[in-house]
Amino acid sequence: MSDESDAPSLAHLYAERTRRGDGGIDYGAWRELVTPETVNLTYGFPFPDSFPNAELLDAAETLFEEEPERALQYGGGDYADELAGIVAERSQDRGIDCHEGEVMLTNGATNGIDVVCRTFLDPGDAVFVEAPSFTWSLAVIRSHGVETVGIEVDDDGVDVEALEAELARRRREDLAMPKLFYTIPNFQNPTGVTLSLERRERLLDLASEYDFVVLEDDAYGELRFEGEDVPPLRSLDDTGRVIHLGTFSKTIAPGIRTGWAIAEAGVVEQLGALHTGGPNRFTMGLLAAYCRAGYLDAAVPELREAYRDRRDHLLSCLEQSMPAGVEWTEPAGGFFVWVELPAGLDAEAMLEGAIERGVVYLPGRLFYTTETGGQHCLRLSFSRASFEEIERGIAALGETVAARLAD
Amino acid sequence: MSDESDAPSLAHLYAERTRRGDGGIDYGAWRELVTPETVNLTYGFPFPDSFPNAELLDAAETLFEEEPERALQYGGGDYADELAGIVAERSQDRGIDCHEGEVMLTNGATNGIDVVCRTFLDPGDAVFVEAPSFTWSLAVIRSHGVETVGIEVDDDGVDVEALEAELARRRREDLAMPKLFYTIPNFQNPTGVTLSLERRERLLDLASEYDFVVLEDDAYGELRFEGEDVPPLRSLDDTGRVIHLGTFSKTIAPGIRTGWAIAEAGVVEQLGALHTGGPNRFTMGLLAAYCRAGYLDAAVPELREAYRDRRDHLLSCLEQSMPAGVEWTEPAGGFFVWVELPAGLDAEAMLEGAIERGVVYLPGRLFYTTETGGQHCLRLSFSRASFEEIERGIAALGETVAARLAD
Repeated sequence: MSDESDAPSLAHLYAERTRRGDGGIDYGAWRELVTPETVNLTYGFPFPDSFPNAELLDAAETLFEEEPERALQYGGGDYADELAGIVAERSQDRGIDCHEGEVMLTNGATNGIDVVCRTFLDPGDAVFVEAPSFTWSLAVIRSHGVETVGIEVDDDGVDVEALEAELARRRREDLAMPKLFYTIPNFQNPTGVTLSLERRERLLDLASEYDFVVLEDDAYGELRFEGEDVPPLRSLDDTGRVIHLGTFSKTIAPGIRTGWAIAEAGVVEQLGALHTGGPNRFTMGLLAAYCRAGYLDAAVPELREAYRDRRDHLLSCLEQSMPAGVEWTEPAGGFFVWVELPAGLDAEAMLEGAIERGVVYLPGRLFYTTETGGQHCLRLSFSRASFEEIERGIAALGETVAARLAD
Repeated sequence: MSDESDAPSLAHLYAERTRRGDGGIDYGAWRELVTPETVNLTYGFPFPDSFPNAELLDAAETLFEEEPERALQYGGGDYADELAGIVAERSQDRGIDCHEGEVMLTNGATNGIDVVCRTFLDPGDAVFVEAPSFTWSLAVIRSHGVETVGIEVDDDGVDVEALEAELARRRREDLAMPKLFYTIPNFQNPTGVTLSLERRERLLDLASEYDFVVLEDDAYGELRFEGEDVPPLRSLDDTGRVIHLGTFSKTIAPGIRTGWAIAEAGVVEQLGALHTGGPNRFTMGLLAAYCRAGYLDAAVPELREAYRDRRDHLLSCLEQSMPAGVEWTEPAGGFFVWVELPAGLDAEAMLEGAIERGVVYLPGRLFYTTETGGQHCLRLSFSRASFEEIERGIAALGETVAARLAD
């Protein structure tokens, strides 16, 4: 039975979308070449020293001591119950007027996207996304069998004029209008750019005019290094059509995989009707005890400082090592810098050489829904690698680009 | 914005299945009547003393001490990686020949059902279920917009002759054939009955003949009180068409909400392609450290004994308090006893009176997909209430039934 060769495939019984393979990610063959010695600037992993092991252990002690009969039960105890309220309080501090009945806990922001898609999307619907946007989010959205349409991003976030033109064109040509626009307005993944206030307001006007939901993925919003916060889309909207997603993955740890969706109470009820259940109650209680002990409030300023130092270091290494003609973004928060190589260079084709020189990054193509998008672009993460690694990795990248330019 | 009355509804943008309300559960108005004083024999909650608080805290200490840089990272550390292998080992002990590549971790068994449904089912597909079956499982299955067809259960589990007759009828009449048969073969929820070996073999023959997947939900399989284990369907199948679901919810705690699906490696890969991600990596590492310390092996025999004592107590209370004409199952494991009242009595109509007398149970209707199923039946859980509560609750139930019979 465990020998696959003997067992007939069940593929003919799969759902249509499973047979189509919607939602798969083709990373490319280069992943096989990466070794433990390669400086890894690919994924947005927090740096290892950032993990609050001792504080979470302390929170676990509190939880078990105070709720010995409920911490592990279905439904959990008071701490688990409190988490939605804690999220609501923290969101109010960021300008979002909400209460706990408007908060749904999720298994991280990705699960939040999935639950929203399941609630709103039928196969064949159109979804507008930023181009580029986060690979995994795009994969989750596409797994629902929908058409994704990318709208260009520049230094001020998504180009709302291009968005309006595309909306008008589709209406004129009687094409499917979008049900959903997915955006990462703060320190966007992968570009690091932030959507300006003016554009946020225009985006909301367009959402009302063309009647679509705005899915605001604010995974990095609390990690601003400098400048003033731009108000969340959800705080600027008075039509109830913004669903705001957040996560503790970047401010506590990805391993606890807990995020949230904030929406009108009626929408939250529908999201919950999917029986996906959100994070486990033990994790919810643990995080509430952690927050109530003040650990999160203490950690966030430290994390902002640590990631700012990392960004500064990456930017100064780029300044030092990149040949003329290479450009990059300077994010005011988050984990990522987006690099544009001179036209004609192909970041994916260059990757094998980069890995040979000792550095790996993510090629721009992975962040587009079209096959040719982002060819001369790449994403660098400054969240995990050490300062020494960043220096070595960017030097290797500079050499790789210089060699290509010399070809 | 947080005032719903001002915000226009987004209901017109919902997916079709959301608008249809597929998957909702109508518990009935009686839930409002239950007070903290009511003896609660409804849900399959473990009893509070069963929770391994100290052992999980110890496992957390081990985890953080041994993997300080990875326990909370995306992907987790070696302990998290090990959990699928631990599940495979434990499943081998139960006769299932499998390796870790055939195991997918899930957010409990319910999430396992959902992931299987998403992978295999298109709206309009037919799914066969046991009648009665677990309310939440039925709701999850129905949330996929499919037709559910109930096949009667008796003391030896699902009636395979009735199953065969329905399959033959549907083929003859050119109706949609089932893609999936969902079964809880051991100590079934809600009836407590176990599917006999002979019927398991017949079910698998029918699955091959009529080409459907068997979804084996074995949530209670490790909690057998007496008699010999009947081999899991997955262990009896050589066609690869059984997907086996298990969970730590009953043997460790529901609050950690971690289960698994065991299937052919190719199917596991498809289940994983949904990006739902399974339980968080911290929980996975924690459970692996807990299992590796020997805590689970030590707990299971104790849990079997504790639940057996509870079952014995419930059965002796029923013997003592039930009027003539009332019948009930005598489960060899699990959490539930199924009670059949004399024909003509309506367990749901009787519920208000029972709550007034101080006891609450789940009416049989909740476990059927048809409106009239299970009217004279009810489910009792012996997993959570104290011995004193069980005695008091069953006495109240006996009085309620006697009063109805006297009417």
